[in-house]
Amino acid sequence: MTHRDLAETRFDLWAPDADSVTLLADGRKLPMSRGTGGWWTAGDAPRGADVDYGYLLNGEATALPDPRSRRQPHGVHGQSRTFDASSYQWGDGAWTGRQLAGGVIYELHIGTFTPEGTLEAAIGKLDYLVELGVDFVELLPVNAFNGTHNWGYDGVLWYAVQEEYGGPEAYQRFVDACHRRGLGVVQDVVYNHLGPSGNYLPRFGPYLTQGSANTWGDAVNLDGTGSDEVRRYITDNMMMWFRDYHVDGLRLDAVHALRDTRAVHILEEMTVRTEAAAVALGRPLTLIAESDLNDPRLIYPRAAHGYGLTGQWSDDFHHAVHVNVTGETAGYYEDFASVAALAKVLTHGFFHDGSYSSFRGRRHGRPLDPHGTALWQLVVCIQNHDQIGNRATGDRLGAVVGFDLLAVAAVLNLCSPFTPMLFMGEEYGAGTPWQFFTSHPEPELGKATAEGRIREFERMGWDPALVPDPQDPQTFIRSKLDWSETSGHGPDGAAHARLLEQYRTLISLRRSLPALTEPDFGSVRVEFSEPERWLVMHRGTGRDAVSVAVNLGDEPRAVPIAAGATVLFSTGEGVVPDGAAKVSLPVRSAVVLGALVA
Amino acid sequence: MTHRDLAETRFDLWAPDADSVTLLADGRKLPMSRGTGGWWTAGDAPRGADVDYGYLLNGEATALPDPRSRRQPHGVHGQSRTFDASSYQWGDGAWTGRQLAGGVIYELHIGTFTPEGTLEAAIGKLDYLVELGVDFVELLPVNAFNGTHNWGYDGVLWYAVQEEYGGPEAYQRFVDACHRRGLGVVQDVVYNHLGPSGNYLPRFGPYLTQGSANTWGDAVNLDGTGSDEVRRYITDNMMMWFRDYHVDGLRLDAVHALRDTRAVHILEEMTVRTEAAAVALGRPLTLIAESDLNDPRLIYPRAAHGYGLTGQWSDDFHHAVHVNVTGETAGYYEDFASVAALAKVLTHGFFHDGSYSSFRGRRHGRPLDPHGTALWQLVVCIQNHDQIGNRATGDRLGAVVGFDLLAVAAVLNLCSPFTPMLFMGEEYGAGTPWQFFTSHPEPELGKATAEGRIREFERMGWDPALVPDPQDPQTFIRSKLDWSETSGHGPDGAAHARLLEQYRTLISLRRSLPALTEPDFGSVRVEFSEPERWLVMHRGTGRDAVSVAVNLGDEPRAVPIAAGATVLFSTGEGVVPDGAAKVSLPVRSAVVLGALVA
Repeated sequence: MTHRDLAETRFDLWAPDADSVTLLADGRKLPMSRGTGGWWTAGDAPRGADVDYGYLLNGEATALPDPRSRRQPHGVHGQSRTFDASSYQWGDGAWTGRQLAGGVIYELHIGTFTPEGTLEAAIGKLDYLVELGVDFVELLPVNAFNGTHNWGYDGVLWYAVQEEYGGPEAYQRFVDACHRRGLGVVQDVVYNHLGPSGNYLPRFGPYLTQGSANTWGDAVNLDGTGSDEVRRYITDNMMMWFRDYHVDGLRLDAVHALRDTRAVHILEEMTVRTEAAAVALGRPLTLIAESDLNDPRLIYPRAAHGYGLTGQWSDDFHHAVHVNVTGETAGYYEDFASVAALAKVLTHGFFHDGSYSSFRGRRHGRPLDPHGTALWQLVVCIQNHDQIGNRATGDRLGAVVGFDLLAVAAVLNLCSPFTPMLFMGEEYGAGTPWQFFTSHPEPELGKATAEGRIREFERMGWDPALVPDPQDPQTFIRSKLDWSETSGHGPDGAAHARLLEQYRTLISLRRSLPALTEPDFGSVRVEFSEPERWLVMHRGTGRDAVSVAVNLGDEPRAVPIAAGATVLFSTGEGVVPDGAAKVSLPVRSAVVLGALVA
Repeated sequence: MTHRDLAETRFDLWAPDADSVTLLADGRKLPMSRGTGGWWTAGDAPRGADVDYGYLLNGEATALPDPRSRRQPHGVHGQSRTFDASSYQWGDGAWTGRQLAGGVIYELHIGTFTPEGTLEAAIGKLDYLVELGVDFVELLPVNAFNGTHNWGYDGVLWYAVQEEYGGPEAYQRFVDACHRRGLGVVQDVVYNHLGPSGNYLPRFGPYLTQGSANTWGDAVNLDGTGSDEVRRYITDNMMMWFRDYHVDGLRLDAVHALRDTRAVHILEEMTVRTEAAAVALGRPLTLIAESDLNDPRLIYPRAAHGYGLTGQWSDDFHHAVHVNVTGETAGYYEDFASVAALAKVLTHGFFHDGSYSSFRGRRHGRPLDPHGTALWQLVVCIQNHDQIGNRATGDRLGAVVGFDLLAVAAVLNLCSPFTPMLFMGEEYGAGTPWQFFTSHPEPELGKATAEGRIREFERMGWDPALVPDPQDPQTFIRSKLDWSETSGHGPDGAAHARLLEQYRTLISLRRSLPALTEPDFGSVRVEFSEPERWLVMHRGTGRDAVSVAVNLGDEPRAVPIAAGATVLFSTGEGVVPDGAAKVSLPVRSAVVLGALVA
């Protein structure tokens, strides 16, 4: 079923190479007729919601699920079910959207955010997020995958919402609940590959480029024969999230794996359709790329021959902070082992801006044009699902460093000139891990996934017995947040509660201090000492001036600040400026200082 | 041997994964020592020219040729020989270079341009080219390949000049002779693949990307580990042509096959090094991409986030002319079957500017920004080595249409707003074909090449017996120009001579009429009639106004022109404007008209 015009639900199917197509709907077989461009249509098909259906290609006996299916109540191999997206009564009429600029994002995974692991249960936590002060929730992919739980990147039916999460109507209720509380919603979407089970797309048309694989499977056909419709499959899906689900932005997974040689890159085509949708819907829409390319072109305006995306993730910030607080320097962390690396990131956005990347064995990236980009266009974090979950045991930063350094890292993130993102639980220093978990029903696939994962870490020197089995249901359950940690009780209760309060304060400070969200690259000035391991970032001028000072070392340090500055926030105890141009920072502490208002 | 600093010749070798390297030089074995970045050097190696040498990797017994070899006197599998590029006494001191803008290019293949097939023999034809009036000669690739003759795209040693052509010193003499006659030299270079025999690069380092092939073999490693040196291998090679051989420009073969995901594309890196070389050498240097992408980014300035190349080939012009004069509409010609297609090309540059390409089964290209590009940046032709040689029998346009339409096509090419290129012999309507020829010494490779070629055309409906065997030496010999055709004798002698005179006149007109080379996209205005099959192109205004009118049909046509225009050139007989605003064109004819100067 498609919604080519979203006002009507119709059984239209793109199957350019099929000799015949039969619609199986509520047990009835309805022959379809071929229209133009490889599209088939069924004449007297049933209308409305809750019709179970599938497509029989070339006289075959087994019905395939609809590539644009909205519901898969019997799993991704079963029949599809129609869903009337227009029947939901929205209550977000007052919502006028939210620009990314100045915002704070909260990344969460529906399955592990709450004990229940549903969209409905997540609604129960929204007031907590409002109190925390974030502006957007960003959901890991919710599209339909085989099995009951996983991270979401094994999706095969991009138009469906996983039933375990509650299906499409629950998704509408969730977005509605967010909007009614003033929270925007960013949805993580995967257009660069399909999961290993339940991908019937190649049966219908040239969705994939055979023989051209990326890390996760056959590449999506973006520039070969028939790719116009494949690109439309993608951009129509984007429109679905914006129009049927009122989503405010999309996080585009791993855009470096989108292989596209066309003169108009698919990312630019996404921008064009999104900009048109923003006009039609009358609210800002945001596109954020996850990109490993350090390529400014992604966010340069189209008029400057860029792709015009709103923003892009920049892992360099994460790496610089992570290395400086943990001392870990293996793998891709190697080049970031200095305070200078952190200073470069804070002032230039990209650390790898054409510099040599040891991990890649080549130069990487290019400088951002400070005149063509704004600081908030880089989305950064100190933890996210990948940076935690791709560790052998899925241990969070708090398991590596203590609460003191967690708070220092939080200051760097939330006072950074970029758009900060938090990973669920980070704000209270969750003690629960976030591990790699899967639920492949096929035993071979489950075995291969588990063994592959364990072997990968064995090669890196891990004891295989310590690497959690992704197929073990306990790995999933262990990864769920334990909200009792926020109660203030338990061994780390006070520390959790204190960190949570620090996050609330920092987010509130960010909102109240214009200097912190000043978009101009020239607005960041950094001083640091490599041997003494401190760094001061200066933002704004005059009465608006703010300095953020961190001591990453194991000795107290006196660091330079503006004379007469006052402490607005401190992670350490008893931080008092000496009245002149220095402040003494305890070990592993951070402080935010404002100009003394006369 | 490398010329990292071209003032000195040294035996330096990049072999990052070798355990040991021994230089074999004039029979002596000299152990090399590992320096930084995977570079090895030999301490007391012989100096100067004419040293036969090779490299023994990891104690192996067989010496491999140098990846940067300048000469391969014993073929590409044999030892290399040093060449002192600085010993040649150049006589082109008065040469100050040539901008591409306003120029006419003459494409030639050294092996078939003259009976001898050498650079030396080609020098003997330069005065003829000067008389013809072209500005640049463009040589098909001359780098070293296995065998004695082929088109040049099977090169494996990019720094060497094929011995059969005369080797590197003959190449210097050739460029010198061109420059002394006021001719610029463009060299066709292939950086997207290596030939099937004699490619030892993977033995030395990660030059290729394994498992990622393009049409012709493993892709060159432009963005993987170690690719910094691979990119330098390419750009150093470019510098060699510019500095050691005084070349004025490079034609970059099939840039769409350069797979590069880096934020700084290799084409942009080429531009950066070429611009620096132009400053250092004090003369303009030109980079022209052969591109199948219809992507304006290639020629947008770097400041506008383009790659900054000087120009790019645009096949659309060829296709539009070819279809309109031949009526052939198979394969990629299909979309061009209208006078309107020709009109679109003349006014927009790209026909496929986002329009649907039947051949590709998808939309293709994007519009050129008329404010960011100049018309001369598109290099066009009505015949080239590919468009002729990739036909089953390598028959030229003259074998398909008569001399009348040849002349009409010539008018379109040489009065086009773009940079026209001629293919050797085109100017006199050569009766010799230009076929696909190879000389693989390995019988299996020869057999596979021949059979592949024949099968390809068999699939398209050709009688295999009619497709020339590329390995047959006669196929090569048949493809040589027969200069006796220009003598005026023989059955078509007068026709050849007349066409040659028409080419001379048209090139001379192009030079003398400023309107024809006006660079602004807005300067081209076209009128046409689809049913009557005529087209008029108007350039310039006032006293400079020029109109180019062509009648592609089989009936005489009266076409609109400026009142009072005078005939500057006509392919037909007795073309006289009626004094008002019409001119009567005979069937299959073209006319160039100028404003009547009072």
